[in-house]
Amino acid sequence: MLKKTSTDIHTVKAPADYFTGNAWLDVLVRNENIVCNVAKVTFEPSARNHWHTHPGGQVLIATEGKGYVQKKGEPIQLLLPGDVVTILPGEEHWHGAAPDSLFTHIAIQIVTEKGDIAWLNAVTDEDYNSYK
Amino acid sequence: MLKKTSTDIHTVKAPADYFTGNAWLDVLVRNENIVCNVAKVTFEPSARNHWHTHPGGQVLIATEGKGYVQKKGEPIQLLLPGDVVTILPGEEHWHGAAPDSLFTHIAIQIVTEKGDIAWLNAVTDEDYNSYK
Repeated sequence: MLKKTSTDIHTVKAPADYFTGNAWLDVLVRNENIVCNVAKVTFEPSARNHWHTHPGGQVLIATEGKGYVQKKGEPIQLLLPGDVVTILPGEEHWHGAAPDSLFTHIAIQIVTEKGDIAWLNAVTDEDYNSYK
Repeated sequence: MLKKTSTDIHTVKAPADYFTGNAWLDVLVRNENIVCNVAKVTFEPSARNHWHTHPGGQVLIATEGKGYVQKKGEPIQLLLPGDVVTILPGEEHWHGAAPDSLFTHIAIQIVTEKGDIAWLNAVTDEDYNSYK
């Protein structure tokens, strides 16, 4: 059993290779003895990650602000605190903040022999601005 | 992709067979296509679950109040909001609220072919009151 408090958790900038705009990561769980990785992610307004898939799926729990999530081929959905999104293995999607709000979520990724994430292209402004 | 908002989530009482005192469960994720179950659990003061193990392990994210967690053979540890506990597969443990506080955590269980939880005995008052 491993307990981490806030003094054990160190915020890092999300990698620019996979994000548009600034986002911040707190790694909460990354342990070879359990098959889920858990992080808290805070996106600055308009920031979002690239299109991607998770070989084992992902769960997002929105905790603060207003965010967006989009599955390929479907409209953007708004995320508010308390909303929970289950993304199934292989579903292409992205997530990030609304244009006028910081957005924080907890992200849980299932780790498989293919890893926990496969990055694809950046989200275009046209796609990002398509929320109605 | 499945999005749930608070209107889709229904609080239920935790089963008395596995809990001492009152606790309340919001099931956030339970989906046969992803190998983690996620719930929010709120314990009334002094309430706790029974000793148990998780065949695939568990992650607890403390969100409100003051709580306790104990691994068999080790002292009780205090949990405060923001604390994260990684419980490895097979580690016998329990968790619950401190005597003078409600306590809420998010609980993530990995689902295996042996299920996601194996319940054992109730936590005695002697064990519960051993926190220093």
